[in-house]
Amino acid sequence: MTQKSTPCLARTEHEIDTWHLHTDVAIVGCGGAGACAAIEAADAGANVRVFEAASAPGGSTALSGGEVYLGGNGGTRMQRTFGFTDSSENMIAYLHMQHGAQADADKIRAYVEGGADHFDWLCEQGVPFKESYLEERLVEPITDDCLIWSGNEKAWPEVDTCTPVPRAHVVQKVGMGAGEVLMAQLVQAMTQRPQITLTCDARALCLIENAQGDVVGITVRIDGEEYHCRATGGVILCAGGFVMNETMLKQYAPKLLRCSMPIGNPNDTGAGIQMGQSVGAAAINMHEGFASIPYYPPASLTYGIVVTDKGQRFVNEDAYHGRIGSMLLEQICERAYLIADVEAYGSYEEMNFLAADVAGTGDSIEELEAELGMTPGTLSHTVSLYNTWAAKGEDPLFHKQAAWLRPLEPPYVALDVTPGRGCFMPYFTLGGLDTAPTGEARRIDGSVVTGLYAAGRNAAGVPRRGFGYNSGISVGDATFFGRMAGRAAAQRALQLR
Amino acid sequence: MTQKSTPCLARTEHEIDTWHLHTDVAIVGCGGAGACAAIEAADAGANVRVFEAASAPGGSTALSGGEVYLGGNGGTRMQRTFGFTDSSENMIAYLHMQHGAQADADKIRAYVEGGADHFDWLCEQGVPFKESYLEERLVEPITDDCLIWSGNEKAWPEVDTCTPVPRAHVVQKVGMGAGEVLMAQLVQAMTQRPQITLTCDARALCLIENAQGDVVGITVRIDGEEYHCRATGGVILCAGGFVMNETMLKQYAPKLLRCSMPIGNPNDTGAGIQMGQSVGAAAINMHEGFASIPYYPPASLTYGIVVTDKGQRFVNEDAYHGRIGSMLLEQICERAYLIADVEAYGSYEEMNFLAADVAGTGDSIEELEAELGMTPGTLSHTVSLYNTWAAKGEDPLFHKQAAWLRPLEPPYVALDVTPGRGCFMPYFTLGGLDTAPTGEARRIDGSVVTGLYAAGRNAAGVPRRGFGYNSGISVGDATFFGRMAGRAAAQRALQLR
Repeated sequence: MTQKSTPCLARTEHEIDTWHLHTDVAIVGCGGAGACAAIEAADAGANVRVFEAASAPGGSTALSGGEVYLGGNGGTRMQRTFGFTDSSENMIAYLHMQHGAQADADKIRAYVEGGADHFDWLCEQGVPFKESYLEERLVEPITDDCLIWSGNEKAWPEVDTCTPVPRAHVVQKVGMGAGEVLMAQLVQAMTQRPQITLTCDARALCLIENAQGDVVGITVRIDGEEYHCRATGGVILCAGGFVMNETMLKQYAPKLLRCSMPIGNPNDTGAGIQMGQSVGAAAINMHEGFASIPYYPPASLTYGIVVTDKGQRFVNEDAYHGRIGSMLLEQICERAYLIADVEAYGSYEEMNFLAADVAGTGDSIEELEAELGMTPGTLSHTVSLYNTWAAKGEDPLFHKQAAWLRPLEPPYVALDVTPGRGCFMPYFTLGGLDTAPTGEARRIDGSVVTGLYAAGRNAAGVPRRGFGYNSGISVGDATFFGRMAGRAAAQRALQLR
Repeated sequence: MTQKSTPCLARTEHEIDTWHLHTDVAIVGCGGAGACAAIEAADAGANVRVFEAASAPGGSTALSGGEVYLGGNGGTRMQRTFGFTDSSENMIAYLHMQHGAQADADKIRAYVEGGADHFDWLCEQGVPFKESYLEERLVEPITDDCLIWSGNEKAWPEVDTCTPVPRAHVVQKVGMGAGEVLMAQLVQAMTQRPQITLTCDARALCLIENAQGDVVGITVRIDGEEYHCRATGGVILCAGGFVMNETMLKQYAPKLLRCSMPIGNPNDTGAGIQMGQSVGAAAINMHEGFASIPYYPPASLTYGIVVTDKGQRFVNEDAYHGRIGSMLLEQICERAYLIADVEAYGSYEEMNFLAADVAGTGDSIEELEAELGMTPGTLSHTVSLYNTWAAKGEDPLFHKQAAWLRPLEPPYVALDVTPGRGCFMPYFTLGGLDTAPTGEARRIDGSVVTGLYAAGRNAAGVPRRGFGYNSGISVGDATFFGRMAGRAAAQRALQLR
C-alpha cells in the first residue's frame, strides 16, 4: 500500500526563469472537489487549469458509492418529495453531536444552509438521481435508488436530540459504485466549459510562492518535463487525503493501521497536504479517520451484538457501521466477535461485504463461549442480560433502539471481527489543511495563505471523527467546498485582472 | 485556563535592520530542556543566551515531581546499587511496547543507551539524589527517597515480555514537588558558567530565517522593546507543550479537554511549536497526551476495580495511573467508578490526590449497584466474576497481577471518577516538533531545518502515548534531549566561527 510521498517543499518565484503556463486558477487533482472547483471557477468567469496525477480524472470520488450527504433548509427537493422535513437547526445539531469538540461550526453552517441548493446544482450539472427512497438499513444500494439512511440518524444518542431524516442522495446507477457515474457527469460538465483545460498524467511537484509568501503558481511534471504554471487567482489543492502514505499514517493516525483496506486512489499520498504545509498552511485533525466494519447486508445482523473477547458489548449495534468500527479500534482486546442467532445471521453467506470468518458456533451460548475460549460467565452473562431486556424492547446499557432488539435464540454463531484478522475493515483519513468555508487555507495563527485554497480530503472538512461519520459526507463536503474554493479563487483572479 | 497563543510567524533576515544581540546559541525557555541545553552548549565552548518568558527560570520541570525516568546499559548507578539489572534491550523493548506504532526507534535507542550516563551527569551538576529505594506503589514519594516504580513495569502486558525494574529517580526533597530542587540546581549550574546569559521576562516573538530558510536568529520582547538576536549556531526551542492553549487543544487533542487540570506553567501555550512550524518544521503526534486518575495513595485502592456505568471493567487496575486515565477517556459512558471494599478504601480519606466524591455505598454489591442507578446484574455480575477468579489469584479478562487480586468483600464504596465530575484528572500534551535525536528540527519530508533545534515538550520526544506514559519520562526526555540539542547547536556555531 505504501507510496512514498513526494517531497513537496515550495519554491520561491525568483527561482523561476520561465513561466510555461498561465491561468487564472490552477487546480491540483480532478476528483469530486477538483471537478466542482473547476466548474464553479469557470462559471465565475475564470480560466482554469486542472492537473490530475492519474491518467484519467475521477479521483477517490469515482471509486466511491456516489452518495452525497445533504439536507437542511427544510430539506432537499428529494427529501421533501418523500415527506421529510429537515430544518437547518436539526442538521446542524446533528453534525455537532457527531463531531464534538472537533466540529467546525462555520463550515457546518455553510454546508447545511447551502445543502439543498447544492443538490439542485449537481442535478443541473447532469448528475442523475432517481426519484426514489429506500427505507432499509444498508451501506450502499445495489439498485439505482436515491434517498437512503446512511448515518446515525436513528441511533442513540443522536435520535434522542435530532429528528431523524435520511440524507444520503445516491447517484443513479444499478449496482454499487455510483461514484463513477457522478464523476463521469462532472467531467462531462467540465468538458462543456472551454475555459477549463484538464491535463492528466500531470504530477504536481510543489507550490511557488512570492517574497511575501503568497502562492503564485505551481510546478507540475508532465511526461518527464517540469512546467511552471502561473495562477493569478491562486492554486486549489484537491489532491486527496493521505491514506496511501504509511509513513504519514504512522506519524499522524497510527490507529488506522490496524484496519485492513485503505479506501482511496493510489495518489492519496498526502502530497497535497504537504504542499500546503510547505507554504505555512496548518494541517489539523490529522489523527482522525473513518474506520468501519460494514457488517450489513444482511441488515438482520443488526439484531446481533458485537463483543470483545471479554464478552463485553461496547456500542449500540444499530449505529452506523463506521461508528462501530471506530469504537472497536479503541477496545483493548485480542479478539472481537459479532454474535448472531440463525435469524440474525440470515442471508450472510449469500451476500456480505464483511468477509468475516465464522469463529465458532454453539447450540447454547455456553457452548459458543467455550468454543471461543472465553472465560465462563462472560459472553453467557452478556447475552442473558441482553435477552432479558431485549424481550422488553429495551437496552439500558447501550441504547440500541427497540426496532433492532429481540432476544438471541440458540443456535448461535460468532463472526470474527478482530481488526487485522481478515474481515473487511476499510479506512481513510479525515485530517488535512485548515481552511475557511471559502476554501482559503489558513496558517497556524488563523491568517490566510493568500492564493492558496484546498477542498476535499486535502482539507479538514465537515467530517472530523470516525465516530461521527455518515456515508456520503465526504463526497458531499468535497463537492460543496470544492465549489466554494473555485468561486473564491476565480473572484480573486478577476479582481487582479 | 486559556491563553491566546502569540502569532508566531517568522521574519526574514532582510527585514532586520539592526541585530541588537549576538550569540552562538539562543535558547527559548528555561525549564529542564532549556537549562540542560544551555549547560551542554556552554561546556562545548559556545556562548549561550537563554530567554525565559516568566519572571524566573524553572518552567514546567520546576512544577513537576522531579522524577527522572532512566535505565538501560545494565542500569544506572542507583538501579545497580539496589540490585536491579536493566539491559538496554529490556528497556528498549519496554518503551516500544508502550508507544506502539508511534515509537521513535532512534530516540528510544539514544535515550536508553545514554540513560545511565545522563544520571551521572545530573549528579555532576549537583542535582541531589539520596541513595534509597522504595518498593511500594506510589505516584510520588512524600519522603526524600529516590528510586521508585513509576510506570507499567509490573503490569500486563509489559510484565509478560520485559523484566520489571524501577526506573524513576526522584530528586532528593522531603515532600512532593522535587522538580523545584532539580531546577534550582540546574539554574545554579548555569550560573557557574559565564558563557551563559539568562534573561527572564523575555518573550520570544518569532524566528528569523535567511533567504535559504535557515534559522539565523530570534526576536524577543523585553520590557516592551523588541530585540533581534543573531544566533550563529541556531535557536533551540524549549518553550514547552500546548496544554494551556485551548484553541490548539480543541484542534489537535480535543479528548484532553474532558480532563480537569492542565499540568504545566502558563507559558505552555504552544508558541514554541508554532514558531517551529512557521519556518517549516513539522509538528507530529499532536493528538496525544497524558491523562490520569491518580487514585493512589492509598495503594490499597489498587485492590479495587474501575468500572463504567455499565458495570464493565476496561483495564487492569494495577497499571500506571496514566494508562487508566487514558483508557477511561476512550470509554463511552456517563459515569465511571472506582469500586472498593473497606480494606481497599483504607486510608483514602486521610490522604489522597484523587479528590473523588463517594458516589455510593452498599452493604451488598446489589445495594451499591442500585444506589448507583446501574442496571441490575451488571456491577454485581462483574464483581462476582472478579471475586471468583481473584480468590485463585487470577484475572483472565484484564490480567491484573496476583499481587493486587483479592475478593472484594462487603461493605462497598464507589468513588466517582467520571471525567469532568470533579475528581482530579491531570493532563498535558505529548505532541510537538519532529526532531532528530540530535534535536535538529525536521520538515515534513524529513529534511532538517538548518539552525533550528527543539527539546522537551516543544518536541515530540520519547513519550508518545498517554497509554504508555511513565512518571519521569518527560523530565528525563527533556533534560536528556535538551543536552543533545545544546551540543549540536554549539558544534555548529564553532564550525561556523
